Amino acid sequence: MELELTLIGYEVIRDAEGELPVLLPFSEMGGVLAVHTAAHHLQAEMGGRGILLGNVPGVAPPTVLILGAGTAGTTAARQAVATGAHVIVVDSELTKLRELNREVAGHVVTDLSRLVRLERYVAIADVVIGAVLVPGSRCPTLITEEMVKTMKPGSVIIDLSIDQGGCMETSRPTTLDNPTFVVHNVIHFCVPNMTANIPRTASRALANASLPYIQALADQGLDQALRDDPGLAAGVYLYRGKMINARLGETLRVAVSSLDELLSKGE
Amino acid sequence: MELELTLIGYEVIRDAEGELPVLLPFSEMGGVLAVHTAAHHLQAEMGGRGILLGNVPGVAPPTVLILGAGTAGTTAARQAVATGAHVIVVDSELTKLRELNREVAGHVVTDLSRLVRLERYVAIADVVIGAVLVPGSRCPTLITEEMVKTMKPGSVIIDLSIDQGGCMETSRPTTLDNPTFVVHNVIHFCVPNMTANIPRTASRALANASLPYIQALADQGLDQALRDDPGLAAGVYLYRGKMINARLGETLRVAVSSLDELLSKGE
Amino acid sequence: MELELTLIGYEVIRDAEGELPVLLPFSEMGGVLAVHTAAHHLQAEMGGRGILLGNVPGVAPPTVLILGAGTAGTTAARQAVATGAHVIVVDSELTKLRELNREVAGHVVTDLSRLVRLERYVAIADVVIGAVLVPGSRCPTLITEEMVKTMKPGSVIIDLSIDQGGCMETSRPTTLDNPTFVVHNVIHFCVPNMTANIPRTASRALANASLPYIQALADQGLDQALRDDPGLAAGVYLYRGKMINARLGETLRVAVSSLDELLSKGE
Amino acid sequence: MELELTLIGYEVIRDAEGELPVLLPFSEMGGVLAVHTAAHHLQAEMGGRGILLGNVPGVAPPTVLILGAGTAGTTAARQAVATGAHVIVVDSELTKLRELNREVAGHVVTDLSRLVRLERYVAIADVVIGAVLVPGSRCPTLITEEMVKTMKPGSVIIDLSIDQGGCMETSRPTTLDNPTFVVHNVIHFCVPNMTANIPRTASRALANASLPYIQALADQGLDQALRDDPGLAAGVYLYRGKMINARLGETLRVAVSSLDELLSKGE
Amino acid sequence: MELELTLIGYEVIRDAEGELPVLLPFSEMGGVLAVHTAAHHLQAEMGGRGILLGNVPGVAPPTVLILGAGTAGTTAARQAVATGAHVIVVDSELTKLRELNREVAGHVVTDLSRLVRLERYVAIADVVIGAVLVPGSRCPTLITEEMVKTMKPGSVIIDLSIDQGGCMETSRPTTLDNPTFVVHNVIHFCVPNMTANIPRTASRALANASLPYIQALADQGLDQALRDDPGLAAGVYLYRGKMINARLGETLRVAVSSLDELLSKGE
Amino acid sequence: MELELTLIGYEVIRDAEGELPVLLPFSEMGGVLAVHTAAHHLQAEMGGRGILLGNVPGVAPPTVLILGAGTAGTTAARQAVATGAHVIVVDSELTKLRELNREVAGHVVTDLSRLVRLERYVAIADVVIGAVLVPGSRCPTLITEEMVKTMKPGSVIIDLSIDQGGCMETSRPTTLDNPTFVVHNVIHFCVPNMTANIPRTASRALANASLPYIQALADQGLDQALRDDPGLAAGVYLYRGKMINARLGETLRVAVSSLDELLSKGE
Repeated sequence: MELELTLIGYEVIRDAEGELPVLLPFSEMGGVLAVHTAAHHLQAEMGGRGILLGNVPGVAPPTVLILGAGTAGTTAARQAVATGAHVIVVDSELTKLRELNREVAGHVVTDLSRLVRLERYVAIADVVIGAVLVPGSRCPTLITEEMVKTMKPGSVIIDLSIDQGGCMETSRPTTLDNPTFVVHNVIHFCVPNMTANIPRTASRALANASLPYIQALADQGLDQALRDDPGLAAGVYLYRGKMINARLGETLRVAVSSLDELLSKGE
Repeated sequence: MELELTLIGYEVIRDAEGELPVLLPFSEMGGVLAVHTAAHHLQAEMGGRGILLGNVPGVAPPTVLILGAGTAGTTAARQAVATGAHVIVVDSELTKLRELNREVAGHVVTDLSRLVRLERYVAIADVVIGAVLVPGSRCPTLITEEMVKTMKPGSVIIDLSIDQGGCMETSRPTTLDNPTFVVHNVIHFCVPNMTANIPRTASRALANASLPYIQALADQGLDQALRDDPGLAAGVYLYRGKMINARLGETLRVAVSSLDELLSKGE
Repeated sequence: MELELTLIGYEVIRDAEGELPVLLPFSEMGGVLAVHTAAHHLQAEMGGRGILLGNVPGVAPPTVLILGAGTAGTTAARQAVATGAHVIVVDSELTKLRELNREVAGHVVTDLSRLVRLERYVAIADVVIGAVLVPGSRCPTLITEEMVKTMKPGSVIIDLSIDQGGCMETSRPTTLDNPTFVVHNVIHFCVPNMTANIPRTASRALANASLPYIQALADQGLDQALRDDPGLAAGVYLYRGKMINARLGETLRVAVSSLDELLSKGE
Repeated sequence: MELELTLIGYEVIRDAEGELPVLLPFSEMGGVLAVHTAAHHLQAEMGGRGILLGNVPGVAPPTVLILGAGTAGTTAARQAVATGAHVIVVDSELTKLRELNREVAGHVVTDLSRLVRLERYVAIADVVIGAVLVPGSRCPTLITEEMVKTMKPGSVIIDLSIDQGGCMETSRPTTLDNPTFVVHNVIHFCVPNMTANIPRTASRALANASLPYIQALADQGLDQALRDDPGLAAGVYLYRGKMINARLGETLRVAVSSLDELLSKGE
Repeated sequence: MELELTLIGYEVIRDAEGELPVLLPFSEMGGVLAVHTAAHHLQAEMGGRGILLGNVPGVAPPTVLILGAGTAGTTAARQAVATGAHVIVVDSELTKLRELNREVAGHVVTDLSRLVRLERYVAIADVVIGAVLVPGSRCPTLITEEMVKTMKPGSVIIDLSIDQGGCMETSRPTTLDNPTFVVHNVIHFCVPNMTANIPRTASRALANASLPYIQALADQGLDQALRDDPGLAAGVYLYRGKMINARLGETLRVAVSSLDELLSKGE
Repeated sequence: MELELTLIGYEVIRDAEGELPVLLPFSEMGGVLAVHTAAHHLQAEMGGRGILLGNVPGVAPPTVLILGAGTAGTTAARQAVATGAHVIVVDSELTKLRELNREVAGHVVTDLSRLVRLERYVAIADVVIGAVLVPGSRCPTLITEEMVKTMKPGSVIIDLSIDQGGCMETSRPTTLDNPTFVVHNVIHFCVPNMTANIPRTASRALANASLPYIQALADQGLDQALRDDPGLAAGVYLYRGKMINARLGETLRVAVSSLDELLSKGE
């Protein structure tokens, strides 16, 4: 603020549909990584059940339970279905399940997450992937510790929701150095930013997603770019040293200004 | 025999691979019909469980257990997978399961039929399709009455193996007029020749399969055609009034002649 | 009204896109059931043409004509394509045909329903599925009696539009007890609510679709839920004994109140 | 012969299954080229019907009739199905039709070529591709001039069988310079060696297919290579100046020697 | 204007999403035609590289670079992927690339068109298809002459954007009579209206797309139809002899009237 | 030998086609594991390039080079294609490449391994999977150290052929404890028996594959089972204390007996 900087946060820029376009690729990459990571930790050397995330003829395939049918959950589901696993996806929105179901031609079990079946699904799952992302708020705890107790020893939980508090009662943030811990014999992988492990792909994806905004800033100048694109304006934390973001202002107990007013003055 | 007829049975003609080419299309049609028939009898009006053989978003799809991965079982599996059902196929031959698994890209659970898992599969199945065909002998009883007792009320059993005695302990032949009966609350459909219900398709398929043999007989005459094609010769019951088929001869207590000898005399 | 009840009709609740979210699953289930039902009635025992709804090698597959590319028609088309049938879908909206065509990778013939080709299609169809649903009004008669006369004996018509008067001139409502009748040698299946035959699947699907509304009513109370969701409000027939639905009010000759006004008073 | 050369013909070398491995890639390339060529000649500028070989939403796709389900026919069918065309394949062998049908998941009409339906198919076809290859003999005439008369003006015939006399009564060999002629308003493309038009791909494919033989000759010497591989030996026309190939010997009225005898002398 | 005509241009009518519904089918047909045309001109007889647009086992497939992931580019990509080619699609909008990628299950390389990788892609491409369509303005030049110089001799450029000036520096309009020219050994096909070559398909597609508008005009009369559908109104050039279209008015230096005002007077 | 034991080696039993049926599932599992393992080691934390084995929209996917199109290579290819990677498969047999190509609908580059292109492919590969298995002999070195030097830093080599000496010049056996080493900045994963990491799946797969042999031995007794199945007999190392296997006898300098003679004496 003293430097009179303008700060725009990638993670709060919104597009015309109100989605977070710069975060979207990270959900896509996270969904694929979750399946790769589950495949790795199911192996015996890692303490897992010692099973293959695949469909070997004559051997019943493992069951992957995915919580959430948003971008991360859908991407994970597609990847898991491609391995030949038995895939179950739950979400609270029927529309998302319908889209996923159609996309994978029905090769998936879809269910609403609010119903009691969740307990049954957890008990038969070899892998549970938490992909419940509620923008701007702590995500709900869907899997209780009691449910985790019913899982088979060596099963794997990947909690992609850990940035927002996690959607399992037993999950807590870990680091890439030491990514897993074990609760009730179930391996928990809860690294908040998994994509740090694929920096080359992630940085290109980030560049792709942020390029239109950088280009708009370069072409039109800061003020005009913010006036033209309310989604970009929604990403402003600080504007020329003034606090704009209400939540951050409240947290830091700093007076909050209206970006609209500041911009209209500048005209 | 008195009429000095030559009788050739379609159902015992063999092709170069030792398969039964004229019967093959009937297995294909039977496999598809089995799934159509199961879909029909699962409906409430028919006394079934009142469930859809399909994958409605948000509703766990029904489970179809198929016994046998030969032509009928594989065709049924492909059709059942296409409805979005959860499909389990068991067979005693790993090679057949491997082929099926590859063909449907792993969207099926395959297992060897000899293992104890059969009991578990029957208990969760909404539909069981028996497609165990052992050429020339009674088919083994894979599903015991005890297993049938564990099935959910209104489940459906289709026994395509009924011509050869059936592969369920509870199955017995029925007719198209009165095609089903109920044992332990499970609907049994055990019509020996289901394809009689689709005579137009079946007769064309039969014509297709038998045409090469009819053409050979017409072009080359009976004797030469039999000499040229040992598979056709394998289909001979009676040759100019002489009993050729050993099994039939034994059953009827009639002396059996050697077709080879009779044919070589004719040269 | 005397009991001062509030009545909300599932069948008129609308979602953000103006669609009928509680009816949608019934269209999905109806589309699949239509294909299962056609497969059944094409069989000789049922009086049908005696053909298999499938693609037997060497036998030209049957032709399925589907009127309407909405949810029911699209679901039926996907299921029919999966059987290997030759599938023709007509609709008056090109956009819907485009989506369907892309989804099934062009394995379908699509055409506008207004053109003269409809006559040609009916004449070659083994199955005609009527899936024309115009929300809130009688559906148009697309297939005339003259066209039905041109169909092959034993062909099957499934009229899913029968709830709204049917889209064939020859169709009239039937019941699950006695679901079919024959006109010009063509079997007509015109049961208004086919999904009554799969109550277990249907009730779960209904629960899924209605759950968000029930939850909103429980969490926020009636008035707030109606204020928050105009789509739910659109479903109100009676509000605390006052007639709200204009059409019903007109039919019953009862004065109609404005829900908005009643709700704003309550604030 | 004077030079005491040994001549081996690529086109008669056989593999363990009795197929012609060096010719196989040419059938594959020919099948794809046939579809590309048909798409080109259907265009108005080329005198064709002025239709797209594709599936435009709302427009009934063109019909492609393929005669023969061998390598060329199957490859053409796969490519034509991929364009969204309505594809009909006829062959005299049911087994080949079964394999194709399974491979394209039933998205094709298959029929036996001997039946009367051929006339009907020709009359509705926009494209007819002749891919009947009977190794070592003139191919049968499947399409008569009378049938060609029934085709729509501007339709296209591609006769891949022209090397062996063609399978249409109206076809006669043309050249790449002047590849087509018109009979009864139907465009005929009958270039014997279409793959001369894609020399880069063809020469690489030929190198791939012939490499094992060249390598065997280089590693083991001529005599040992011929002794080891009866399929290679089957390709010998001349051996050290002696005529080996019976048919060629007969045609040229030259005495024919036994390769086996000559080789065993050399041991 | 003297005749007091009303002129509505198909090419500027807009639908509810702001797209051009009557032009859309032409983009679809153009995308497919581009692939067919590339396949043809890659052949040696046409002066091309002499390669097959297909995937022959053992031979690396050709590379097709598509500029633009709109309707034309997406349709071309789908068709090119179906041939087994190695397909690269670039666009400036990530959302379009995401949709395409999902639709073809990742069997395509997608990249943003602004990055330096374009040079690399052009250098390895056997076919470049320009499908950059910016409604209402000249399309940007993406491929410079320098890039074209790096292409392999006999490669093919199809510029579908030629109507709007083309997206290659080297492209200039050609005609169906003489559709190609060669620059730096690269074949350029730049016919502005390729679909003139498939008049039968195109006229039916045009009829399909324009039918709703014609029907609205017939049913409701000109004025009411224009009032009801702002998208149709957007297509008006002249209304009862008054110039409405601003751009055309400016070009012809004619006074422009407001359609809204003229229509409201008529009420 | 002193104990007069009979020893049968799973790894040398042959089936009717001369394949090794008990080893086959291990190749299948190895192929899938290779892709999972590559995905893991490409991550930055493991020292890899920091890229995702997947197809993120707008980011060019990684390239996976697979040496060998046998069971392991084909399974790996299928799994790699499913991730959306750019997959290249080389083999010395065209027939295997043809089968793979058809199975994945051309979404793979196939090439003969003998050609110079191998160098080019290695230089662009992010992952190289060695799956060259020549039964009963040391596998050839396909990738030289010079080629490895051309690979990008952080690339990954998985050598499934390591049991037979490996197909890379730089590979040497490692253990599950310490599975990788780095040469020329390329990560090498060369664990001889990767499936030891998935013991639960592997033991079930082994049981499936060996069950028919155990059952034959149990049902028919040792001698009869060996007489009935020459493939089982081919697996005999020791028979009642007599050395049968020629290679092992030679290695151990022990006299070798003929199993056939010993068995015929027992009759």
